Amino acid sequence: MAFTLEEPTEVVMQRIDQYLQENAPRFERDLCDLLRIPSVSADSRCREAIREAAEWLRTHLTALGLAAECIATDGCPIVYAQSPPVDGAPTVLVYGHYDVQPPEPFEQWISPPFEPTVRDGNVYARGATDDKGQMLTHVHSTEAWLKTHGSLPIQLKFLLEGEEEVGSEALHALLDRSAERFACDVIVISDMPQFGPGQPAITYGLRGIAYYELRVQAADSDLHSGTFGGSVPNPIHALATMLAGLMDQSGRITVPCFYDDVVPMTEDERARFAQLPFDQQKFLAQLGLDTTSGEVGYSTLERRWSRPSFDINGIWGGYQGEGSKTVLPAAAGAKFSFRLVPHQDGDKITSGLKQQLAALCPPGIRWELIEMHRSPGVLVPPDSPYVMAAARAIEQGFGCAPVLIREGGSIPIVTALREKLDADPLLLGWGQDDDNMHAPNEKFSLADFHRGIRASAHLWHELGRLRPAA
Amino acid sequence: MAFTLEEPTEVVMQRIDQYLQENAPRFERDLCDLLRIPSVSADSRCREAIREAAEWLRTHLTALGLAAECIATDGCPIVYAQSPPVDGAPTVLVYGHYDVQPPEPFEQWISPPFEPTVRDGNVYARGATDDKGQMLTHVHSTEAWLKTHGSLPIQLKFLLEGEEEVGSEALHALLDRSAERFACDVIVISDMPQFGPGQPAITYGLRGIAYYELRVQAADSDLHSGTFGGSVPNPIHALATMLAGLMDQSGRITVPCFYDDVVPMTEDERARFAQLPFDQQKFLAQLGLDTTSGEVGYSTLERRWSRPSFDINGIWGGYQGEGSKTVLPAAAGAKFSFRLVPHQDGDKITSGLKQQLAALCPPGIRWELIEMHRSPGVLVPPDSPYVMAAARAIEQGFGCAPVLIREGGSIPIVTALREKLDADPLLLGWGQDDDNMHAPNEKFSLADFHRGIRASAHLWHELGRLRPAA
Repeated sequence: MAFTLEEPTEVVMQRIDQYLQENAPRFERDLCDLLRIPSVSADSRCREAIREAAEWLRTHLTALGLAAECIATDGCPIVYAQSPPVDGAPTVLVYGHYDVQPPEPFEQWISPPFEPTVRDGNVYARGATDDKGQMLTHVHSTEAWLKTHGSLPIQLKFLLEGEEEVGSEALHALLDRSAERFACDVIVISDMPQFGPGQPAITYGLRGIAYYELRVQAADSDLHSGTFGGSVPNPIHALATMLAGLMDQSGRITVPCFYDDVVPMTEDERARFAQLPFDQQKFLAQLGLDTTSGEVGYSTLERRWSRPSFDINGIWGGYQGEGSKTVLPAAAGAKFSFRLVPHQDGDKITSGLKQQLAALCPPGIRWELIEMHRSPGVLVPPDSPYVMAAARAIEQGFGCAPVLIREGGSIPIVTALREKLDADPLLLGWGQDDDNMHAPNEKFSLADFHRGIRASAHLWHELGRLRPAA
Repeated sequence: MAFTLEEPTEVVMQRIDQYLQENAPRFERDLCDLLRIPSVSADSRCREAIREAAEWLRTHLTALGLAAECIATDGCPIVYAQSPPVDGAPTVLVYGHYDVQPPEPFEQWISPPFEPTVRDGNVYARGATDDKGQMLTHVHSTEAWLKTHGSLPIQLKFLLEGEEEVGSEALHALLDRSAERFACDVIVISDMPQFGPGQPAITYGLRGIAYYELRVQAADSDLHSGTFGGSVPNPIHALATMLAGLMDQSGRITVPCFYDDVVPMTEDERARFAQLPFDQQKFLAQLGLDTTSGEVGYSTLERRWSRPSFDINGIWGGYQGEGSKTVLPAAAGAKFSFRLVPHQDGDKITSGLKQQLAALCPPGIRWELIEMHRSPGVLVPPDSPYVMAAARAIEQGFGCAPVLIREGGSIPIVTALREKLDADPLLLGWGQDDDNMHAPNEKFSLADFHRGIRASAHLWHELGRLRPAA
C-alpha cells in the first residue's frame, strides 16, 4: 500500500493560482471559441449551433477527465459531467447555460455578435457574460485542480443546458425524470452581475417572472385607413389602451389581486440596501436617462430587487417600413412580462390579468392571451455555511469581501433545481450591470473572467473543508 | 378644300362600343402587364420598377398618337400626354397614379401581389384598383375614340404620377413650376370605390389627412428587463399611454382645438346619407366584425365620410421574433394619422398634438414627432355641368344612374390640382369597397373595368357637348 503526504493547503492553492496565471491566455481563447457559436435557443434556425455548443462543452469536460455526455432531449441537448464522490465532503452541482439571447437588433452592434472582439479589456459577443463566460469560469477552475492536484476536494457535477433563455423545458423534463442523478448539497450558479466594479456580491434573492403574449384582432384583413377610419375598431389603439391600462401613474400594476401575496420588505433589508454604495446619478448617466421611474415609495434598488414590476418586451402591428402607409391594420400583438417576488401566485396573476384585459378591451376587438413561461421568485438564507464559504472564496478571487444583494432578473430553472434537488442555490455573479445582457454589445470583463476562475478554484477548496453536521 | 359629313352621335358611340367589345381581352392583358411591375413608391428598392411603369405608360400613350413624355423629377417620373385642343370644347385633365402601396404582409396574399391572377371575375394584384386598373379605363376609352373616330371631342391631358402613395412631392413641385401647361376646365380622377356593387357613384367630397411618426426613447440601449425592470421607464408603455390617450372612450380625439374648425354636418346631407342603401350588418359581416366603433352620435357613413378620425397605422418596439425575450427596449415608435374634413387647419392640429403628447408623456421619455405628409379635405359643388355630364356617361357605362356620395380616403394631390389649376375635380370611382385597397389580396372587378372604360368613352362625348357659358 502506497501512502502520499497530503500537501498543505497553501501549497495546493499556490500551485493552482500559478496554473491559472500560466493558462490565462488559453482560457480566453477557449471562451472566444465558445462565443463564436451562435447558439440562440429562441431561433429555430440555430439548432445546429446549439448542438455544436453542447458538443464543444462535452469534449472540453471529457478532456479534463470527467465523465461527460450530451443528454438528448426533445429540445436542446443537456451537457452533464461529473467527478468521483469525495467521502465526507459536499457534492456541488454547477448549473450553467450555453444558449444565448437573440442578437437583434444587429445594426446596433459595434462588432458582430458572434465574432468575439476584445476592446478595453472586455470581450464583446452575445453570451459573453450571459452565460458562456461566467459558466466557463467553473470549468477552468476545475481544470486547474485536476491538472495540478489530480483530483477535486469535492464531488462536482456540471449540468449545462441550452434552453435557459426560452424556459428550460428540456431540463425541467429531465429533472422530473431523473432528479436523483443530480443529487447534491448545494447548487453553484454564476449568471448575474456583481454589485459594481470591484465589488463582488452573493445574491440571495431572484425575482420570478410571468411572461405573456397578447394578440388582438379587429377586422379579418387590413383595411384602407381613409375609407374605413373612424368607423371600425383599430387593433393597435385597442392594444395600446389595454397595455397602458395595466399600470397606473404611480407605477402600480392594476391587475386585481396582483399584490395580495407580496410580502412587505423588512426594515432590516431596506436599511441594508440603503447602505450599499449605490450612486443614482451614475446609474442614470450609465443608462442615458434623466430620471428613474417605478412604483411610488420605493428606492431604485428596492424597485429592482424586492418589488414586482411590469414591462412590455415587444410590440408590433401594421406598417413598420420606410415611409408611410395609410393602413388600418387587422391585428396587432405584444409580449410583456411581470417580474414576481416570492409567494406571488402565477395562476392567480394570470386569472386577474385576463379579468383586467377583458375590462380594458374596447368593443369589437377579439383578443387572445398566451402564457409563454413562468417561474416564481427565490430567496435563500444569507447566513448558511455555503454562503460563508463562498464569501471566503470570493475574497481570495477578487481581493475584497462580497456584499449580500438580491437581483431583479429571473433564472426560472433555479426554482426548479432548488425544489427537485432539495438544495439551496449559491448565486455568485462575476458580471457587471453594464454588461448589456440581452442587449446589443454584450460584454464580459476579462479581469472579472480570471478573478471568477480564481474565486471558483478557491470555492472548491472552501466547500471541501465543510463537514457533515452532526 | 375637302369637306366631310359629321356622323350622327349614335353612330360614333356605336362604333366605339363595338371597338371596346372587340378589344376587351387585350385591354385585360394590358392591365395585367402593368400590374406585373412592382412600382412601390414607399420602397427605395423599387426605383427601377417605378421607371419601368412610367415608361410602359408613355409608350402606350404615344402609340395612341398622343404627344407623350416622361417628365424627370427629383423623385419618380411623371407621365404626361396630351391631344390637340378642340375649339369651343372643354379641356379635360385625367389624373392618375402608377405607383402602388407596399404589398406587405406577403404571407396573407392568396396569389403573389405582382402576379396578376383572375379569380371569379376579379383580377387580384397590388394596384389592381388603386390605381392602375381605374387609371387605365381612361387610357383605353381614349384609344377607342382615336382608333374609331380619329380624334377626340375634347382636348385631353393625361397627368400620371408615381408618388401618390407617399405624398406626391414631385408632382407638387411640377405644379409649382409649370401649372399653366396643365391648364384645364375639369380634372377627372378615378381612384375610389363605387357606392356598392351595381351602384356607381360620383364622389363630391374627400377627407384630408395629417400623417405622423412618433418615436420614443428611454435608455440609450436595450436593457435586461429583470435587472432593470420596474426602475427605469419602458418606452413601449410610454408609447402605448400616449397613443391610447389621443382618443377618448367616446371616440373623440383629445388633441386641443382639433374640432374647432370642423363644420357641423347639414341636416340635408345627414338625410341624404341616411337614404342610401347601406346595410350595416352586411358591412360588418364583410369585414369580419361584430360591431362598428367610432365617434358617439354619428352613423357609420357619417363617421367614414364627414367626420375626422384617428388611426394608428403601425407600431413597433422591442422583440417581435419567435419565442420570448426578456428585454426592456430602449426605443419604440408608431405611425399614425388623422383624417381631416374641410376647413381643419393642419398647423393648428400639429401644434395641439405636440401639446397633448407632451401632457401624456411619462417622465424620463424623450420623444420626437415627425410630420410625414398632410393634405386638407375637399368638397365640390354636386350640381355642376361636369357632374351632370358624368352622371349621364356613367348611366351609359354602368346601366344605372350614380348616387352622390363622399369618401373617407384622401387623395392629397386632388387639393393641389384644384388649387393650382383652378378647376374642380370630377371623382368617378369604378372600384368596390371590398377591393382591399392598401391590404393583401387587392382586386378589381373585370366587369367594372370594362364598364368604367365605356363610361369614360361616353364621358368624353358628354363633356364634348358642353359649350362655354356666355
